[in-house]
Amino acid sequence: MSEPRARADSAVSAVRTYVREHRAAFLGDLAEWLRIPSVSAQPEHAADVRRSAEWLAGKLAATGFPTTEIWETPGAPTVFAEWPADDPAAPTVLVYGHHDVQPADRADGWHTEPFEPTVADGRLYARGAADDKGQVFFHSLGVRAHLAATGRTAPAVHLKLLVEGEEESGSPHFRALIEEHAGRLAADMVIVSDTGMWSEDTPTVCTGMRGLAECEIRLHGPDQDIHSGSFGGAVPNPVTEAARLVAALHDDRRRVAVPGFYDGVVELTERERQFFAELPFDEAAWLRTAQSHATLGEAGYTTLERVWARPTAEVNGMGGGYQGPGSKTVVPSSAILKLSFRLVAGQDPDQVEKAVRAWIDGRLPAGVRAEVAFGAATRPCLTPLDHPALRSVVRAMERAFEQPVRYTREGGSGPAADLQDVLAAPVLFLGISVPSDGWHAPDEKVELDLLLKGVETAAHLWGDLGETWHDAR
Amino acid sequence: MSEPRARADSAVSAVRTYVREHRAAFLGDLAEWLRIPSVSAQPEHAADVRRSAEWLAGKLAATGFPTTEIWETPGAPTVFAEWPADDPAAPTVLVYGHHDVQPADRADGWHTEPFEPTVADGRLYARGAADDKGQVFFHSLGVRAHLAATGRTAPAVHLKLLVEGEEESGSPHFRALIEEHAGRLAADMVIVSDTGMWSEDTPTVCTGMRGLAECEIRLHGPDQDIHSGSFGGAVPNPVTEAARLVAALHDDRRRVAVPGFYDGVVELTERERQFFAELPFDEAAWLRTAQSHATLGEAGYTTLERVWARPTAEVNGMGGGYQGPGSKTVVPSSAILKLSFRLVAGQDPDQVEKAVRAWIDGRLPAGVRAEVAFGAATRPCLTPLDHPALRSVVRAMERAFEQPVRYTREGGSGPAADLQDVLAAPVLFLGISVPSDGWHAPDEKVELDLLLKGVETAAHLWGDLGETWHDAR
Repeated sequence: MSEPRARADSAVSAVRTYVREHRAAFLGDLAEWLRIPSVSAQPEHAADVRRSAEWLAGKLAATGFPTTEIWETPGAPTVFAEWPADDPAAPTVLVYGHHDVQPADRADGWHTEPFEPTVADGRLYARGAADDKGQVFFHSLGVRAHLAATGRTAPAVHLKLLVEGEEESGSPHFRALIEEHAGRLAADMVIVSDTGMWSEDTPTVCTGMRGLAECEIRLHGPDQDIHSGSFGGAVPNPVTEAARLVAALHDDRRRVAVPGFYDGVVELTERERQFFAELPFDEAAWLRTAQSHATLGEAGYTTLERVWARPTAEVNGMGGGYQGPGSKTVVPSSAILKLSFRLVAGQDPDQVEKAVRAWIDGRLPAGVRAEVAFGAATRPCLTPLDHPALRSVVRAMERAFEQPVRYTREGGSGPAADLQDVLAAPVLFLGISVPSDGWHAPDEKVELDLLLKGVETAAHLWGDLGETWHDAR
Repeated sequence: MSEPRARADSAVSAVRTYVREHRAAFLGDLAEWLRIPSVSAQPEHAADVRRSAEWLAGKLAATGFPTTEIWETPGAPTVFAEWPADDPAAPTVLVYGHHDVQPADRADGWHTEPFEPTVADGRLYARGAADDKGQVFFHSLGVRAHLAATGRTAPAVHLKLLVEGEEESGSPHFRALIEEHAGRLAADMVIVSDTGMWSEDTPTVCTGMRGLAECEIRLHGPDQDIHSGSFGGAVPNPVTEAARLVAALHDDRRRVAVPGFYDGVVELTERERQFFAELPFDEAAWLRTAQSHATLGEAGYTTLERVWARPTAEVNGMGGGYQGPGSKTVVPSSAILKLSFRLVAGQDPDQVEKAVRAWIDGRLPAGVRAEVAFGAATRPCLTPLDHPALRSVVRAMERAFEQPVRYTREGGSGPAADLQDVLAAPVLFLGISVPSDGWHAPDEKVELDLLLKGVETAAHLWGDLGETWHDAR
C-alpha cells in the first residue's frame, strides 16, 4: 500500500468515525432548523425566514466559525460565515446554499407535517430536508469532521459560507448583494450545495447548469377585438403572427432557428458524451418523471444531452383572443408570448437577446406591432472536466461513497452563475440529493445515508483542496 | 315616355305619397316596439322578448296580415305572419328578420337611453333601430304602400314573414324550428332584411354571406405543467405544436394551406370583381372602421374580395401555459385553439371539417394528443347575379333610391343560410342600414330617410315580383 493511499484510508476511517459519533446531535440540530417554516414566497413567514437565518448563524458560530454575519437585503436576510485557514496561501472556497424553502401544507398531499421532521425507513421527511437545509447543514458537521480527522484547529482552506434567504423566490436581491460584498466573498472557487446526484446507487458530480433568458412578447393588431366576419381574412391577426413566430423558433430538426442563437456554444466533448451515455438511463422511467408521453428535441442529441448540455427555446405560455367556453368570432386585438431560452456555456444572454430581437424585427407584417421585454437573465455555468478543483471533488466523493463517481449536468438554472460572474471564480457542485427526494413537492425527504456521505465528502474535500490546489494549478 | 316606364313613375309617386302620409304613425309604432328591451341574451329580459313578439304579431294583424302566429321554441318565441296573394300562381316570398336585440346600457357610452327612442338630425337612435326592428318593421308599411299604390286588396305575392327572437344569441333553435315548419315556410325565395348597404350615397344589394365552421382544438402534452429546466428541450411542448398548427394554416401567400379546403369554391366572376372594384372604397377609412393598421390577406385579391368572397381560416383565440405577470418556467401541459373558417359558396362545412381533421392528424409529433371538436356550422349563401328575383330587388331599390344600385356581399354569416338549406330556396338580401348605424354598439341608429326608402323598396318589390317572376323564370 502506497503512503498516500494509506493516508487516505486512514482519513476515510477517521472521518467516518467522527461522523458516526456526532450523527445524532447533527440530525437533532437539523430537525430543529427544519421546524422553522422559512417560506420566502409567503409574506406571513417573513419572521420565520429571519428566525431561520438567525438560527443558522448561531449554529455556525457554535460550530466554530469565527465570523458569522447576517446580511440584510431589501427582502430576506442572508447568512455569511467565514473560517480562515491558518496558512494564508491556502485556497479560498465559498460554499453556496439557501435557508429558505418552498411553501408546504399538509393538505397538499403530505403524509407527515411538512414542518415536523419525521424519520422513517432511513429517510428524513420535511420541507427543506433536501432543498436546501440538509445540503447546507452537512457542511457544518463536515468541517468539524475535517478538523477531527486531520488534527487541525482551522480548516485546510479559507472556508466561506453564503446561505441566502430568497432562492425559492427567484433570488431577486442576490446579484446586488454579492456585488456589494464582492470583496468579502472573493474565492478561488465556489462550491454550490443545491443540486443532486444521479441516484442512490450512482454518485455523480454535476458539472454545469444551464442559463436562462426570459422574454415576454406582446403583439398588437387591431385596437380591439374585431368581427371576424366583417374583417377576417383582410387584416393581420396578432395571434396568428404570434403562432408564426413560435413555429419559426425551431427548424424541422427542432434546432433553434434564430440566427446567431448558437454562436459561441461550447459543444459537448466526445468524452462527456461518453460519460453521459454510460449512465444507467432508463428513458421510460424518465418520461414517467417528466409526465410526458414521448421525447422530442434537437436532432443529433440524446435526451440527457438535450436537457443538460443543449440550449433551448421554450414557450412557457401563450394567449390571445377568446379562450372561454364556446366560441367568439373575433380577430383578436393582441397576443402574448412568454418565451424562455435555456443557455449553455459560451452563450451570452445579452447576445441572445439581441439575436432574438433582430429575428422578431424582420418577421412581422405591417399592422402588427411587437413589444419585447427581456427580464434579468441567469448565465450558464460549466466546470471543465479537467479542472483541478473538480478532481478534488470527485476524489472526496469517491472516498465517501467508495465507488466511482460519474458526471452529470443540471438542466435548470440558478443563482450560482451570478457568483461565477461577479467573483470570476469557477463554480463546482456538491450535492447528495436524489431525484426521488421530491423537491418542491409533498413528502420532500433526504436519504440519511446520503446526507452523511455529504458530510464525509465535505470533510475530505477541504483536506484534498488544501493539499492539491496549489500543485494542481 | 314608354308605357311601362310611365307606369313605374306613377307607382314611384303613389308609393311615395302613401309613405309620406303614414310616416308619423309608422315611426310612432316603431318607437313603441323599440321601447321593449327584447334582449335575448339576458334571461331577465325573457318576458320582454315575449312582449316584443306579441307586440309585433298584434301590429302585423292590424296591418292586415290574415294570419299571425307566435311559434314557440325552447328559447324565445318567433313571429310568423302570412298574407296570401289572390292569384294562387303568384310567387311566394318569405321575409326573414329578428325581433330580439343586443344588450344595451346607457353606461356603455350611449348618449341617449337605448330603449327610449330619440329622433335627432334625421336619425332615430335606439337599440334595435337598425338591427333589426327597423328593417323588419319597414315591411309592415311597405306592404300597405304596395296595396295602396296598386289598388290591390292582397299583395301581388304570397307574403310570409318570419321574425325570430334569438338571432343575437346565435339562433340556437332556429334550424329545428324551420325544419318543423318547413311546409308552412315553403317559398320561391327568401328575402333577408338583416343586412345593410354600402353607404348613404351608394345603395347596394348584398348577394351573399359567408358560411362559418368553428372548431376547438385541445392539445395535450405532459400530464401537468413540468419544469422547463429539468425537461425542456427533450419533450414536446403542446403550445409549440399548437403554434405550428396555426402557422401551417396559411402559406406564404396567406392562402389557407389545408389540402382540399378550396375544393368547390365558387370563384368570383370578372363581372363581380368589376362591380366590387367600382365601389367607392376608401381603404384608409375601412381600416379605421376595422381598427386595424394595415391590410393583409390572400394574395391576388382585394380587401373587399377577401372579406366578401374568399374563405378564411382565423384564430379566434389561443392559450396555454402561463399568461400572468412575470414568468413561470414550465413546459405547459396543454394548449387550446379556437379556429373558425369562413366559407363561401361551393364549400361544404362537412367537407371542410374532414379536411381540417385529416390535416391535423398528420402534423402532431408523438407525445401530443389532439381533441378536435367542431360546432354546428353555418352554410354560405350566394345569390347569382343573373337571378330574376335579384333583378326585381335591384329594380325596386332603384325606384326607391332613384340611382343605380350596386352589388356587395357580406363577410359575416347568418341563419339565412339555414333557410336556403331547409327550404331549398334562393336567398336575397334587402337591407337599408349603413355601416355608421352602429350595430351592437352604443348609439345604434337608423337613418330615417333610408328607413323610408326601405319601405318604398318593399312596396315596389312585391309589385315587380308579381309581374315578372313567372316570365323571368
